[in-house]
Amino acid sequence: MTSQTSGGNRITWYWEDFREGEVREFGNTTVKQEDIVRFASEFDPQPFHVDEAAAAKTMYGGLIASGWHTASMAMRMMCDAYLLHSASLGSPGIESLQWLMPVRPGDTLRLRLSVLEARPLKSKPGVGLVKSRHEMLNQHDEVVMRMEGYGMFGQRPAASS
Amino acid sequence: MTSQTSGGNRITWYWEDFREGEVREFGNTTVKQEDIVRFASEFDPQPFHVDEAAAAKTMYGGLIASGWHTASMAMRMMCDAYLLHSASLGSPGIESLQWLMPVRPGDTLRLRLSVLEARPLKSKPGVGLVKSRHEMLNQHDEVVMRMEGYGMFGQRPAASS
Repeated sequence: MTSQTSGGNRITWYWEDFREGEVREFGNTTVKQEDIVRFASEFDPQPFHVDEAAAAKTMYGGLIASGWHTASMAMRMMCDAYLLHSASLGSPGIESLQWLMPVRPGDTLRLRLSVLEARPLKSKPGVGLVKSRHEMLNQHDEVVMRMEGYGMFGQRPAASS
Repeated sequence: MTSQTSGGNRITWYWEDFREGEVREFGNTTVKQEDIVRFASEFDPQPFHVDEAAAAKTMYGGLIASGWHTASMAMRMMCDAYLLHSASLGSPGIESLQWLMPVRPGDTLRLRLSVLEARPLKSKPGVGLVKSRHEMLNQHDEVVMRMEGYGMFGQRPAASS
């Protein structure tokens, strides 16, 4: 669990590197219309996600990304920023997930991580739990999605290992 | 909002068709390894989602689907079962999302909908809110994912329209 590579990536983030109260921003993705339509065609083919003309007639006034697409893009930003170089052991779940504003073609998104809680998992020696808030922001600094959830991370091995 | 087509689909499900206490099952998707890897390569390239050999050495003992992939597959099942033929007006969010068991290549998934609450939205005449629980089950009848959240639906137009 606390081995020092993760699929060949060198591990630099352990549970100890998440500090309560810490806030970081990362990610920089401009959302393409073709990606909105491709994702939604596979997983969420509602008219306002896949059909530009139909979307224009809805309350959204045009194509918007599936909320699951936005969540998945957030996941990719987490991976690139720290998860792939971390002792991540997966997530037991999400406590809340809110889609607050539409994500439209051409929007540029980034993610803000706030560490809400970090404690060792008594039931699993060597593993710590991190409760985090992730907010996706657009180019107008509007929060388009907010989620709070948990991740499990290996603790840093003793210096001797 | 309560027009009678949804992107060309005839609307047959309105807010009134969600009855508190109702339980339905639908969907039937066998998860392919290539789909697990393709989704995760784009959105969640952690070793246990994209690298069979690396995955075998983790606590999961083999490749498992990204939780966001499972959630997205659930969304597709909802779309096919009722959303695409409904007066859906989108979702303000999810109250909880739990990944309870790994989803592995070859698993066959289906979704169970339980309607927890259905009430008119006072702030939006003609619109109702539905609180639902969706549970994804595998071929062993194990619940692999559970989520509770809200959807907004147009109410059925008066018979004269």
